[in-house]
Amino acid sequence: MITGSLALGIDIGGTNTSFGLVDRRGQIVAQGRMKTTGYYTVHEYIDALVKSLQPLLTQVGIENISGAGVGAPNANYYTGEIAYAANLPWEGVIPLAKLIGDALRLKVTITNDANAAALGEMIYGAAKGMKDFIMVTLGTGVGSGFVANGQLVYGHDGFAGEFGHVIAVRGGRQCGCGRQGCLETYSSATGIVRTAKEWLAERKEDTVLRGQEAELTAHTIHMAAEAGDKMALEIFDFTGRILGQTLADAVAITSPEAIIFFGGLAKAGPLILEPTRRYMEENLLKVFKNKISFLPSSLQDADAAILGASALVW
Amino acid sequence: MITGSLALGIDIGGTNTSFGLVDRRGQIVAQGRMKTTGYYTVHEYIDALVKSLQPLLTQVGIENISGAGVGAPNANYYTGEIAYAANLPWEGVIPLAKLIGDALRLKVTITNDANAAALGEMIYGAAKGMKDFIMVTLGTGVGSGFVANGQLVYGHDGFAGEFGHVIAVRGGRQCGCGRQGCLETYSSATGIVRTAKEWLAERKEDTVLRGQEAELTAHTIHMAAEAGDKMALEIFDFTGRILGQTLADAVAITSPEAIIFFGGLAKAGPLILEPTRRYMEENLLKVFKNKISFLPSSLQDADAAILGASALVW
Repeated sequence: MITGSLALGIDIGGTNTSFGLVDRRGQIVAQGRMKTTGYYTVHEYIDALVKSLQPLLTQVGIENISGAGVGAPNANYYTGEIAYAANLPWEGVIPLAKLIGDALRLKVTITNDANAAALGEMIYGAAKGMKDFIMVTLGTGVGSGFVANGQLVYGHDGFAGEFGHVIAVRGGRQCGCGRQGCLETYSSATGIVRTAKEWLAERKEDTVLRGQEAELTAHTIHMAAEAGDKMALEIFDFTGRILGQTLADAVAITSPEAIIFFGGLAKAGPLILEPTRRYMEENLLKVFKNKISFLPSSLQDADAAILGASALVW
Repeated sequence: MITGSLALGIDIGGTNTSFGLVDRRGQIVAQGRMKTTGYYTVHEYIDALVKSLQPLLTQVGIENISGAGVGAPNANYYTGEIAYAANLPWEGVIPLAKLIGDALRLKVTITNDANAAALGEMIYGAAKGMKDFIMVTLGTGVGSGFVANGQLVYGHDGFAGEFGHVIAVRGGRQCGCGRQGCLETYSSATGIVRTAKEWLAERKEDTVLRGQEAELTAHTIHMAAEAGDKMALEIFDFTGRILGQTLADAVAITSPEAIIFFGGLAKAGPLILEPTRRYMEENLLKVFKNKISFLPSSLQDADAAILGASALVW
């Protein structure tokens, strides 16, 4: 099947879709983007996607493209379907790989966005050469990709890596999944905002966050912490504690060489990674202490998703 | 390297060492056992092991043996060492694979007992043909072997699968590892006895367990529950709840086809597996519900360990 020298990588996010043509060395030779939203059906979306891709495909010649890889929330590697994606505009189960494949006449492989990011890091990024690592994406939710023996762990049915739905606090915060205390209700971009709002309601102390409850984002809290705001710093410590404790348990199961962080909240850098690492180390079983690398993603934001998705092709 | 048609499997337990010669179809063609304890040094133990093995080796001819696989607590697949094994008589770090290999002039591979059991189940037992499953051994502690993409997950340094040391109850019972709330302080043969002793001290109700605190074992509690004793039944429910909740988190990470149970406490059968399954299902993320098989090991006790260890050779 593999004859061309380029792979098409498509990253479908809740708001934007990015795509690019990637050569075997991981160079993006052409790229573009479009809105994910604003189409009545997934079929209209795919028509628009094909139209957006056309200039790129014509430019390099479709015969030079080996296939397409797609990263999207809730995408299943085995079935080629997207199922009940809370952050995408399409309801129910969508046979995404088939729809895109038929439209482009290319072999299409899909996986969830965190798995795609893990592949991107393994082939082109911070995890190059590693065989056992955990990729954690701290965005609207918490995504993860577990790599063991040099392979992504998809699990029996393709739904492995739901680290964001490990119970971090038993009986804790209500999660969109219907359960309570999931990691992502605490240690995601939305979780950290939830913490700030709770604390502002419960506590009386002075903080620059007070008065801006309605517009709070992970970025606002990040800026406040950078400026030395005590509550904002404490919020990062708390968020890192929950994440670090939960990572210690994932380490006990998979014994990774490194944990790699990506996504909006990870951009806070040491503010989130330092407490996460400290609490993880405190909670690690002795044999794992002081030997797991903590790395931010080494790929550019826009590139990582495209590279990761394209890596599905090779 | 592999020329012979037989593999030597050695299972080193805290009390006994079992060994056997296994053919490629998983038939144990000869076997024996000896004490693990009673030797001043590991060297004396290995001398005795070689002496015990001699009749078997002479019988089949050493040239017909491809190699030896050893299952032992705290054994590391990558280093060939046993490190700080709490349940073995030897202290510190022991280069076990090298010592046995030199003594027998065979290639020796070692791994921990739960990983060996997982291999045994995958090749000859309940997990035959499965590519993604979790093996859980409920003995003195809780051991585990995680199989993903048809391969054991050893992790970067060979210490993966420490499911017994996932924190099941934050701030919970003191564990021998120095941390608090590890799964094995609740859901092992020793954990269930600890629960019984705590409850007998705290509660006043009538139970056949009262008065036999000093001699309580998992088996006594099992017998009491079989006879309908209310507290004993409740103890099994509690033990299964902690195990089931913790398994739900491991499922979110690895998405297994099945979970296979082995070891002393697993012998209580439905008494432990029914509540474990019920609480796991209650705590599962929707995509995993009602599709994970719960299976007891299909191998005979003594055989499983030998078969699993021998499977390291092929």
